[in-house]
Amino acid sequence: MALNLHHLGIAVDDLDAAILVYAELFGATLEHRERVEDQGVEAASLRVGEARIELLQPLGPDTPVGRFLAKRGPGMHHMAFEVEDLAAELDRLKAHDVLLIDQQPRRGLFGLQVAFVHPEATGGVLAEFVGNDRQR
Amino acid sequence: MALNLHHLGIAVDDLDAAILVYAELFGATLEHRERVEDQGVEAASLRVGEARIELLQPLGPDTPVGRFLAKRGPGMHHMAFEVEDLAAELDRLKAHDVLLIDQQPRRGLFGLQVAFVHPEATGGVLAEFVGNDRQR
Repeated sequence: MALNLHHLGIAVDDLDAAILVYAELFGATLEHRERVEDQGVEAASLRVGEARIELLQPLGPDTPVGRFLAKRGPGMHHMAFEVEDLAAELDRLKAHDVLLIDQQPRRGLFGLQVAFVHPEATGGVLAEFVGNDRQR
Repeated sequence: MALNLHHLGIAVDDLDAAILVYAELFGATLEHRERVEDQGVEAASLRVGEARIELLQPLGPDTPVGRFLAKRGPGMHHMAFEVEDLAAELDRLKAHDVLLIDQQPRRGLFGLQVAFVHPEATGGVLAEFVGNDRQR
């Protein structure tokens, strides 16, 4: 079961511009920024109070976020929940026949252990689970 | 400036089904449920840890959420931030020429004072500000 909302993921065309806009409109502060070639994304983690927003700019059109932008335009991309034990959580979801994108935890952005649930399982929202211990 | 993320708004086809799915997948618990005829929506506020998720089912196709569903399908609809003084926050945004949907606070779901910022101002995300005092 989720402990809390870990972050909200947002697909953007221009990461630098988006960081400025989120600072001006929401008082967001930059926590991390990372270019991850093998996931085809440059990402920035922002904080707004206790909440975390992950801005995602694709490195090219033939990437998951690039295809999302081409199909839907910039906007909210996924929501991520923190769980105590990610592997146990995936076992629980499999036992309930929940459609998963990731059968096992994998390394996500910012060194997090993550797994994605298919949007079909949630009624249209791409959902991510994040383990609450980081492996940096 | 925003104090925190207040809630994440999600458009759904079937509110009862969505409440069950969010309980099973994320351990979400129902906080409030309300049918608001003049906004064309039946809404449920769920908690996941400290976070709040607002599920929105349109009362018909010719409503804001009904049109959203027809155009984009079910999924994330808006993000809402809590602010200390909503009227002062709107004045600040107007002084920065931020494109607003609501020029003045209005009554939103669950008795909250709210105002929406246009998605063009944020780079594609419908954003809501919520005053941190409720008028029930």
